Amino acid sequence: MAKTRKAKRVLQCINELAHTAITQLKARQNPVLSIPIRNLSNTVFNHERGMIEMGDRTQERLFFHQGMAKKFMQTFLVASACSELLEVNKTTSIRDLFYMTKHTLSKGENTFDEQSESDPIIEDLEVALGTLREDLHLFASNKGTLVGNITLVDAGDTINCRRVGSGGWGIPSIVEDHVISFKKCDADFILLIEKDAVWRRLNEDKFWKTHNCIMLQSGGQTSRGVRRLIRRMHEELELPVYVLVDNDPWGLYIYSVVKQGSINLAYDSMRMAVPKARFLGLSSFDREAFELPDVVTIALDKNDEKRAKQMLDYPWFAHKKWQQEMKKMLDSKVKLELEALSARGISFITETYLPEKLRNDDYLD
Amino acid sequence: MAKTRKAKRVLQCINELAHTAITQLKARQNPVLSIPIRNLSNTVFNHERGMIEMGDRTQERLFFHQGMAKKFMQTFLVASACSELLEVNKTTSIRDLFYMTKHTLSKGENTFDEQSESDPIIEDLEVALGTLREDLHLFASNKGTLVGNITLVDAGDTINCRRVGSGGWGIPSIVEDHVISFKKCDADFILLIEKDAVWRRLNEDKFWKTHNCIMLQSGGQTSRGVRRLIRRMHEELELPVYVLVDNDPWGLYIYSVVKQGSINLAYDSMRMAVPKARFLGLSSFDREAFELPDVVTIALDKNDEKRAKQMLDYPWFAHKKWQQEMKKMLDSKVKLELEALSARGISFITETYLPEKLRNDDYLD
Repeated sequence: MAKTRKAKRVLQCINELAHTAITQLKARQNPVLSIPIRNLSNTVFNHERGMIEMGDRTQERLFFHQGMAKKFMQTFLVASACSELLEVNKTTSIRDLFYMTKHTLSKGENTFDEQSESDPIIEDLEVALGTLREDLHLFASNKGTLVGNITLVDAGDTINCRRVGSGGWGIPSIVEDHVISFKKCDADFILLIEKDAVWRRLNEDKFWKTHNCIMLQSGGQTSRGVRRLIRRMHEELELPVYVLVDNDPWGLYIYSVVKQGSINLAYDSMRMAVPKARFLGLSSFDREAFELPDVVTIALDKNDEKRAKQMLDYPWFAHKKWQQEMKKMLDSKVKLELEALSARGISFITETYLPEKLRNDDYLD
Repeated sequence: MAKTRKAKRVLQCINELAHTAITQLKARQNPVLSIPIRNLSNTVFNHERGMIEMGDRTQERLFFHQGMAKKFMQTFLVASACSELLEVNKTTSIRDLFYMTKHTLSKGENTFDEQSESDPIIEDLEVALGTLREDLHLFASNKGTLVGNITLVDAGDTINCRRVGSGGWGIPSIVEDHVISFKKCDADFILLIEKDAVWRRLNEDKFWKTHNCIMLQSGGQTSRGVRRLIRRMHEELELPVYVLVDNDPWGLYIYSVVKQGSINLAYDSMRMAVPKARFLGLSSFDREAFELPDVVTIALDKNDEKRAKQMLDYPWFAHKKWQQEMKKMLDSKVKLELEALSARGISFITETYLPEKLRNDDYLD
């Protein structure tokens, strides 16, 4: 396969990085890389755009500097491996990249000892080049499945997601437009479900068919591939996004990462966050609204309470409706899993809970 | 969808269980359930069949018995929920089943407090009825993807697994013949890969096409769905099975579970084990054979060593070739991940390692 325009652009950026360093060396200057800082202090919540963004502070990484020389070398080592991947149009995992770049130098020292050293270098490179790791042809772990009213093309194969059986289509880690493109889509909305078991319940009941939607699950914390795919469908197909998670602080956090990104990966928000994503449930008010028996609730533990209290202070949860939601959880002292809806019947979620929620626009955003 | 013949048979077994208890009650006898014992003491390795099997010892579970009455009740509660699932031809997760059956009795006691109580009851029911949980319409978590030279039908949808893109077809948890059936298959063998990243490397390189096979991954320890699917394809399509795992005791254990089953689920071996499964690699001898640099090896830790020594004593690893394999690992004091092959090049595994292994029949079984 020929290189895409995007691959050519990224390759050019990598080459410029190298070229600059060589020019500096030739001019007897100390080669330097300027790398945006990736931590909380350089993270801001952009109220207008509704997402967590990286600030504009940078750090310098010098070649002739005892404390920085190794990282300088590692940065170019990783850049060189990515350049190789881009040249041959192949992708690989960050674990493989670690092995590709790990070797022993002449004095017996290793370029990298652990993957925990190469992973942050990848992130440095992402922000320094202004690109996503997926565009460097690196993937995280595959996670998640999809079913629904859409036909897409994945690596040249046409996938009719209405006919993907009980298993669904496996969502790859890299879903950029050189891999995935969208064809016919009749769906009215996207439904992201935290739990694989609930996705299967809804798929077995053909919820996506009766409610004309696309259903994704990514087994807990949403993977990069799933987030990016949702963002692309939301933007390119103009579909609203609903999120269905457990009623606990961790479920709310999953929603918030989809919506405005995470602090760790603030840089990625620009291309992954969906600020208009809607929180469909489980709400702390659902327990009464849907008459769920007390016996299926679980007491909040110390960790849950601590996390919920932290989240009360997040600027993106500052609105009264969110404060009410979280205070209700803290006051009631219980949490609720999606599977608890089964206490009202095997298909209660398909036949009652979701239809009522959607019909009444009973969501938070 | 109408009930399948198998569902009718399982329903009949559940009804007989109930009928017997009622008959005993009417005859003023103490109702009793006979449940095969599921522990190491009742597990044997059947050398002839090459699999771990459950022995024939059973325990009695009495209704009028202070220590057993609750479990007796729980067993029928779970049986009744499964019966409901079978009647309406729906499936659910074991977590949902927990919620379906959890309620508060008149004296304030709960039928179940934790899922750790209902899970063993499901296993009791499986062995008592001589059936798999999948036939009780219960699923474990979905895991794994598949790509390759086969067309199959999943819940009525025809899936051409040669055209499933970079993501692949998501392997469902329940792959019994009422859900999955096989159509056109041109593959010569099945390749199970421990690691998702390696599966993606091979899929990107279209290894399944050039080597005419079916490739599955299940992200670490093989899920029930993947094991059962491999067994069915092995048996019904008469395909040899190759397993590719990390070179460490855990990788070997993944292979051994595919091959002869596990002690915990000895009962399931009968329908999941593939005694003829072949161990393709990584072998402890591969490091030298394929000239992998020392720097990509990882030192065995205490846990690895302990586990490897335990496994030396397993009857299914008694053969000289296995003893050599494991002793080589212990002697060299290192382990090796599949991704380490990338040190020899991005596609070294696709273009050199696997072709050589297969060409030379360089496997253990």
